Amino acid sequence: MNLPSKLLEDAVDQMASLPGIGRKTALRLVLRLLKRDVDHVRNWAESFTKLREGIKECSRCYSLSDSDICSVCSDQSRDSSTICIVEDIRDILALEATGQYRGLYHVLGGIISPMEGIGPQDLNVEELLQRLRNPQNPVAEVILALSTTMEGDTTAFYLFRKLQHFDVNVSAIARGVAIGDELQYADEVTLGRSIAQRQPYESTLPRS
Amino acid sequence: MNLPSKLLEDAVDQMASLPGIGRKTALRLVLRLLKRDVDHVRNWAESFTKLREGIKECSRCYSLSDSDICSVCSDQSRDSSTICIVEDIRDILALEATGQYRGLYHVLGGIISPMEGIGPQDLNVEELLQRLRNPQNPVAEVILALSTTMEGDTTAFYLFRKLQHFDVNVSAIARGVAIGDELQYADEVTLGRSIAQRQPYESTLPRS
Repeated sequence: MNLPSKLLEDAVDQMASLPGIGRKTALRLVLRLLKRDVDHVRNWAESFTKLREGIKECSRCYSLSDSDICSVCSDQSRDSSTICIVEDIRDILALEATGQYRGLYHVLGGIISPMEGIGPQDLNVEELLQRLRNPQNPVAEVILALSTTMEGDTTAFYLFRKLQHFDVNVSAIARGVAIGDELQYADEVTLGRSIAQRQPYESTLPRS
Repeated sequence: MNLPSKLLEDAVDQMASLPGIGRKTALRLVLRLLKRDVDHVRNWAESFTKLREGIKECSRCYSLSDSDICSVCSDQSRDSSTICIVEDIRDILALEATGQYRGLYHVLGGIISPMEGIGPQDLNVEELLQRLRNPQNPVAEVILALSTTMEGDTTAFYLFRKLQHFDVNVSAIARGVAIGDELQYADEVTLGRSIAQRQPYESTLPRS
């Protein structure tokens, strides 16, 4: 695709540098931007620069925030003795949307992935251990809420080993057949785990 | 999705304002941008502002260009007596990629669409007629290369009526079963047109 303009070529290259955006899609998006007026495009572009320059990591849980302490960590009504470990901020959004969790979070900032050269030292693991060592904020339970991929399982096991040196309960989110799914279509690993880890019936009823 | 940061919220909103990008995808893209360093993101964002501020329309064919006359219109080796009418610059890129066309183009900048409130006065139609009136550049043939949607057909017919006042041949690109497609899977409208508008066999052989 030989574009007739260097400016257009640059913009399409930059758009296509985002994951999952090919050059044809990039061109379509850039041509749409071109239909907007100059001020609109300037505002559009500046929102990303402002974000990158202004965004902060919460100094406790490493979630993204406009201030030093994020809104979850600074909420006094939340249970500060429970920490849920997640890979990134999108997992926090998903868990918050359930309305079922009132503890705090800890964002690892990725998972251990030898293929991509990401080791424990690249993640906020030491920062987690420091939180657990802080006598001002005793932690009773750490919940592992990582993906059930090979990398997620590796990371969970690595953290589990580290957490054994601390006086905390370590739990993991429940795995099983999703609510609304039919048994016959569930994959065998999931179904196998859901029968092995069956629960007392009363505990599976919705909370009143 | 309640984002924990106003800056993040703004950037996700702007990204999601692009067509075909939902808020979940927008968040994924924005979080990826955040992993790049500040200068990288600034360059990324500026490429779009620079494009919007610097891009020109070719004053002859209304394609996009860095200069007043685009590279196609300024190419003396091309046949200036043939003008191919297209909806937007992506159609030019597609036709140029075939290597089969050596004439010039005219970009309408859209198609007639009553649903979207786009009429002939919003397109570069008058500019086309002025090109045809220019005695310095006699035009022998105008090729209609618009989509075969209802809007495309309407636009083509509108232009055909206008072009009848000029001493030019008006043609349309061939429609038929795509090369490599099996007959049994072709839709009936396409197959019907391809049998009705059959060609002498010799003319269908690849040019040597």
